[in-house]
Amino acid sequence: MADYTKVTLDESEIPTQWYNIIPDLPTPPPPPLHPGTREPIGPEDLAPLFPMELIKQEVSQESYIDIPGEVLDVYRLWRPSPLYRARRLEKLLDTPAKIFYKYEGVSPAGSHKPNTSVPQAFYNAQEGTKKLTTETGAGQWGSALAFACAQFGLECEVWQVRASYDQKPDRKTMMEVWGATVHPSPSEVTEAGRQILALDPDSPGSLGIAISEAVMRAAPDPDAKYALGSVLNHVLLHQTVIGEEALLQMAKVDETPDLLVGCTGGGSNFGGLSFPFLREKLAGKMDPTIRCVEPAACPSLTKGEYRYDFGDTIGMTPLVKMHTLGHGFIPDPIHAGGLRYHGMSPLVSHIYELGLVEAEAIHQTECFEGAVTFTKTEGILPAPEPTHAIAAMIREANRCKETGEEKTILTALCGHGHFDLRSYEVYLDGSMVDYEYPEEKVAAAMQDVPVVA
Amino acid sequence: MADYTKVTLDESEIPTQWYNIIPDLPTPPPPPLHPGTREPIGPEDLAPLFPMELIKQEVSQESYIDIPGEVLDVYRLWRPSPLYRARRLEKLLDTPAKIFYKYEGVSPAGSHKPNTSVPQAFYNAQEGTKKLTTETGAGQWGSALAFACAQFGLECEVWQVRASYDQKPDRKTMMEVWGATVHPSPSEVTEAGRQILALDPDSPGSLGIAISEAVMRAAPDPDAKYALGSVLNHVLLHQTVIGEEALLQMAKVDETPDLLVGCTGGGSNFGGLSFPFLREKLAGKMDPTIRCVEPAACPSLTKGEYRYDFGDTIGMTPLVKMHTLGHGFIPDPIHAGGLRYHGMSPLVSHIYELGLVEAEAIHQTECFEGAVTFTKTEGILPAPEPTHAIAAMIREANRCKETGEEKTILTALCGHGHFDLRSYEVYLDGSMVDYEYPEEKVAAAMQDVPVVA
Repeated sequence: MADYTKVTLDESEIPTQWYNIIPDLPTPPPPPLHPGTREPIGPEDLAPLFPMELIKQEVSQESYIDIPGEVLDVYRLWRPSPLYRARRLEKLLDTPAKIFYKYEGVSPAGSHKPNTSVPQAFYNAQEGTKKLTTETGAGQWGSALAFACAQFGLECEVWQVRASYDQKPDRKTMMEVWGATVHPSPSEVTEAGRQILALDPDSPGSLGIAISEAVMRAAPDPDAKYALGSVLNHVLLHQTVIGEEALLQMAKVDETPDLLVGCTGGGSNFGGLSFPFLREKLAGKMDPTIRCVEPAACPSLTKGEYRYDFGDTIGMTPLVKMHTLGHGFIPDPIHAGGLRYHGMSPLVSHIYELGLVEAEAIHQTECFEGAVTFTKTEGILPAPEPTHAIAAMIREANRCKETGEEKTILTALCGHGHFDLRSYEVYLDGSMVDYEYPEEKVAAAMQDVPVVA
Repeated sequence: MADYTKVTLDESEIPTQWYNIIPDLPTPPPPPLHPGTREPIGPEDLAPLFPMELIKQEVSQESYIDIPGEVLDVYRLWRPSPLYRARRLEKLLDTPAKIFYKYEGVSPAGSHKPNTSVPQAFYNAQEGTKKLTTETGAGQWGSALAFACAQFGLECEVWQVRASYDQKPDRKTMMEVWGATVHPSPSEVTEAGRQILALDPDSPGSLGIAISEAVMRAAPDPDAKYALGSVLNHVLLHQTVIGEEALLQMAKVDETPDLLVGCTGGGSNFGGLSFPFLREKLAGKMDPTIRCVEPAACPSLTKGEYRYDFGDTIGMTPLVKMHTLGHGFIPDPIHAGGLRYHGMSPLVSHIYELGLVEAEAIHQTECFEGAVTFTKTEGILPAPEPTHAIAAMIREANRCKETGEEKTILTALCGHGHFDLRSYEVYLDGSMVDYEYPEEKVAAAMQDVPVVA
């Protein structure tokens, strides 16, 4: 069809393997280190937190890993996800650029997160885990894990960042409908939470703190494990179903992207869309520019240092080499709660250092301006996180208008904003503020980052 | 595939015609009457409110009406919608019944409503309308019209029932993102609203009042028209895309429904799914039982009288013959705001009188109990309205467990509940109440229903 707006795939075209980019990279990413010994960690260090299959995937050198049939059965509830061409937006912007977006908001939890929560719950159930613990910022990941645990009969206990817990009671209720128990973080139920509350009883929380609490709850309990919604290799691996489908869909309409844009918080949405395209780029089959977009108030890639740091705030996790603003850094309360993380996926960080992808940072008012334009033209109301990708895509479309370039842009629209309308209200009533990059707060946090030889 | 969970259609299988059931009925539905003359109304009576193409569709004797290409282009954003088999729910219920559900929550507004808001906005834009006014209860219809108006460049002004306006600010913001202006109803901006507020300054509002306000705003303005989200023939006509797709999808998996269940407020979701199946039944090609499900607190079909009444509370609309609890009846504040309507679609009422469909009424706690079970097993969290269909479907599946019957049940899941989590919270914390049928309030309201010879 010439005038397509949506590119669909048949159910039989859901990918049956996840793609692991590590073997295809010119150099492997640096290993995680034990926080005590500073030696590379082994599987036994991760065993209290993760089932063995996920630990294997975390360090796998295989390029492709089969997706279990039980996982595909659940994926089928919403996959293949649609790819759209944003013709109405193109027309409004009067741009020669062709704008495509891959939409993951069709999942039951409303984002790309179930692509990994489902296999994580599955492998845990298979290995006898009874309960999964986790953190959630905007609530997307907590919802996704609650949904997945319900599918495989696991208990689910979630620490929701306090600011989000208070502002988004609907996300909490949604998790509860799927059967999860939800705590605000910092909470009184873990030592990590009590430590933070002792210092600041009104702490709005952060992803780093919530991670500490969830890890602390799971580690000593033989029946419980921990699940992480981003950052780690196996999480990015699971998300590659997005990019594999998008490759097929772009091919169906004879298009090759000149530019891919995705928002980055922990990196899983970005990696999920871009890694299969990066494979093609490394193989010389296409040559897209691949761009991360992050919040100007929490710019780990564009302003952070690339060095070993903790993944959580308290310093319980392994040391991972990544772009970091310091594990003690608590970002300003921007509306994109899912991007309020002090670090970046070690794999995305490594690939950025290799010069294979680029990054830019954008303020939230520009993001919401773009999102409102997008919603009016394309109909779908985005979550605050992907508004960053939309703003970057609009910047590029406007550049194309100036230069006359007919670039093909592919954007990751990783979730809907049905639980984020309060942030749109703030934008529409003119009271949204932009937070400048907090240079001094970051410098202070960087003081506490361990020095690793 | 033997173990299908989702039945998809190709984009080329989106219906290209709407189905009009009226010519296939043994007798035609009684005509609407002018409220003054009590004579059947003509097109000129409706012209201040609706564009001519919709008036033609309202009284059409054609069995099929072509869907314009511009409408199909927008439908394609979310259509064809998926049909699922609820295998996980069947397993939990341990029922021999096969449960299918057609899911309309994939639309940008989150329900089946855009199936009619899009053509309504299109025909209005084509005939020069600048602004559409409407009412909304739960917010689904207002969102759908705001979305559609944004697609065709129309202004949109919505009266949202006060109780919903206060409880669901997110729905209001969503409409505003699409560019609509939203008033609480009763409002101070119309004479109808001021009349109600004079009697009861704390009025929670009702769909009937909000209709009066929206009609009063549009009628005298040559640039404005009014759009209704249910009840009328042309609205049910547009919704038949649901049933036409479902017929194809059931055929793809070699299934014929023994029972169809859909919730009824104004009747458009129910009519949309069931009319194409009723066509097949009338033609002797299948013989499903077709069942309406309504709230026990607002049971227009099972308790209302079949007689001429006004569609709105103030009495501005034509008189239509329908099952009514009295146009002055204000239903108790059940959570399914979209089902809080004193009447029923005249077409569904007529078909019910003909004995072609049956009806039952269910209390809301049973509905939410079913919805939580459904969400845990199937993943999708339903809006409060279709929880009625889910509860009825679970009743039937449990009956099948007792009798051993392997019935095939098809359920209309007309929208998601992302903006209705507050009602789930009330259910989960045990504070949800059931309202008994308000016999005296209805008897009082019926006193004011005009007597038509």
